[in-house]
Amino acid sequence: MERIVLTFLVALGFVPALVQQASAQADPLPSWNDGAAKKSIIEFVAKVREKGGPGFVPPMERIAVFDNDGTLWAEQPFYFQGLFVFDHVRALAPQRPEWKDKQPFKAVIENDMKTVAALGLHGLVELVIATHAGMTTEEFERTVKDWVATARHPKFNRPYTDLVFQPMLELLAFLRANDFKTFIVSGGGVEFVRTFSEKVYGIPPEQVVGSSIVTKFEVRDGRPVLVREPKLDFIDDGEGKPVGINKFIGRRPIAAFGNSDGDFQMLEWVTAGTGPRFGLIVHHDDGEREFAYDRASAAGKLDRGLDEAPKRGWTVVSMKKDWKRVFSFETK
Amino acid sequence: MERIVLTFLVALGFVPALVQQASAQADPLPSWNDGAAKKSIIEFVAKVREKGGPGFVPPMERIAVFDNDGTLWAEQPFYFQGLFVFDHVRALAPQRPEWKDKQPFKAVIENDMKTVAALGLHGLVELVIATHAGMTTEEFERTVKDWVATARHPKFNRPYTDLVFQPMLELLAFLRANDFKTFIVSGGGVEFVRTFSEKVYGIPPEQVVGSSIVTKFEVRDGRPVLVREPKLDFIDDGEGKPVGINKFIGRRPIAAFGNSDGDFQMLEWVTAGTGPRFGLIVHHDDGEREFAYDRASAAGKLDRGLDEAPKRGWTVVSMKKDWKRVFSFETK
Repeated sequence: MERIVLTFLVALGFVPALVQQASAQADPLPSWNDGAAKKSIIEFVAKVREKGGPGFVPPMERIAVFDNDGTLWAEQPFYFQGLFVFDHVRALAPQRPEWKDKQPFKAVIENDMKTVAALGLHGLVELVIATHAGMTTEEFERTVKDWVATARHPKFNRPYTDLVFQPMLELLAFLRANDFKTFIVSGGGVEFVRTFSEKVYGIPPEQVVGSSIVTKFEVRDGRPVLVREPKLDFIDDGEGKPVGINKFIGRRPIAAFGNSDGDFQMLEWVTAGTGPRFGLIVHHDDGEREFAYDRASAAGKLDRGLDEAPKRGWTVVSMKKDWKRVFSFETK
Repeated sequence: MERIVLTFLVALGFVPALVQQASAQADPLPSWNDGAAKKSIIEFVAKVREKGGPGFVPPMERIAVFDNDGTLWAEQPFYFQGLFVFDHVRALAPQRPEWKDKQPFKAVIENDMKTVAALGLHGLVELVIATHAGMTTEEFERTVKDWVATARHPKFNRPYTDLVFQPMLELLAFLRANDFKTFIVSGGGVEFVRTFSEKVYGIPPEQVVGSSIVTKFEVRDGRPVLVREPKLDFIDDGEGKPVGINKFIGRRPIAAFGNSDGDFQMLEWVTAGTGPRFGLIVHHDDGEREFAYDRASAAGKLDRGLDEAPKRGWTVVSMKKDWKRVFSFETK
């Protein structure tokens, strides 16, 4: 009887994913090896869900925040948005002869990646400002979408959106099936990430927090548009992440996921709240399947986080040991 | 058979509100009188829902934005957040003797409401900045909650949160039952509105956009906090509203609801998009049940909107004629 009713409810689309999943007794995180990291996730979610238990959190307060670069998708040889901007600078260069002798444009045009990599996130933001000012938000969106659809990663020769981490996609789905609301909190440009977040991660634009430039309302030929100004609005990195979360989300999440020291204060602030808290750092230690880097990397430097994670009770994920698969396209 | 299954589904909690409602054939907007305004809302929602129809909008894109002051709750004799700040200035005055001779503090302390009212939204924001700087976001939240719990409106002698418009609560619920995601886009302070938006409107903090001041991350006695700085971050009013929507929500809503010229550009931008669009202005013409004001008001001035609404196809709601009840506490 129960099975018949359940089948009927499923057919009608009335059964949340979790019920279906519980009914099938499937592993919600099939790309995660059994071990301390996977166990800590499963136990945290169980605690938060347990009605009447000491760690129960009402669904409305189950907010989970994820860094993007290096946490949900790869970030080497450099932040993908950086590679997008570099391609854009090179494409525009013939119309902008003054860039030939001016840094950081010169380095980008000459493909001098050492100089370019040293720009860091802040230098990258400056470059974004310079190359896209004057565009409407709609023009910018089209430019990003065109690039995402055609550009290929130099190592994997695949679209950048293929380089999302399969175990993290499963984690996002697992949390959502347990009534978590998942947000991206990225150092990258909010308008860049929003162009693919829904399709790639199932995260709608309104659940993306990121760095931003100032936009201005204008009526052009009777049509209202928003124009990108050559002015920084907000850098959502480091101490900016808790600030951005407070500004955009307006309440303290109960779980935070990152991979670099740019995520440190986000994890610190999230896990300092009362009740059950969860902090997790993805450690890039798999040079074979992805890239191995941490303390000395230009993109995604992880130093303080690695030192302090144990005493702060944060889970450190070894991509090498904890993940069965890194990318969905792996065959083995 | 169908009825039995439906009853079973309802009992299990699996049936969305809309199905229950459709089954009961109830009026979703009982506090609205029949007329052009109510009809325009019902028809817009029906068009957007009609699968395969020319106006169908996928649920994820059904974003509706609401101004707060004067649209969802009253805003006379002055913006309620203004009255909160004035109370706060008066409470702090004994510790700040320098305010006695300094505008706008002097006017607030002496209850010179003419001078104070002339401050407008921008002057109010300056006052907010001055009075709450140095507080952590948690301290500010407690201060607002205490005020909301105890302060009383001068005309109605009720808590300010009683002065929400019953027809607008029904409209919010009706849209949500039809898979709209409802957002507040307020000229008021985002952290002020978020303290009560979930309880009063069913709108969670992460769906509130508003004016903001800069906050700074600090570790105080080993505890991470966010501190309010004496610096304006963003004014979410007029041309700022489409900018704020783009920044926080990241996609153009399909419906916008306002009451003043501070909402003009929001309605303009929202209704300029492709596909079905809906703009609505609440006109305060009921001096008996609420307040009658428009073109000359200090708070909630409505001039250009009143002139241009007809040619732009925006619905103008007469509170007097279109609303059976204004507040839930009315007995007749």
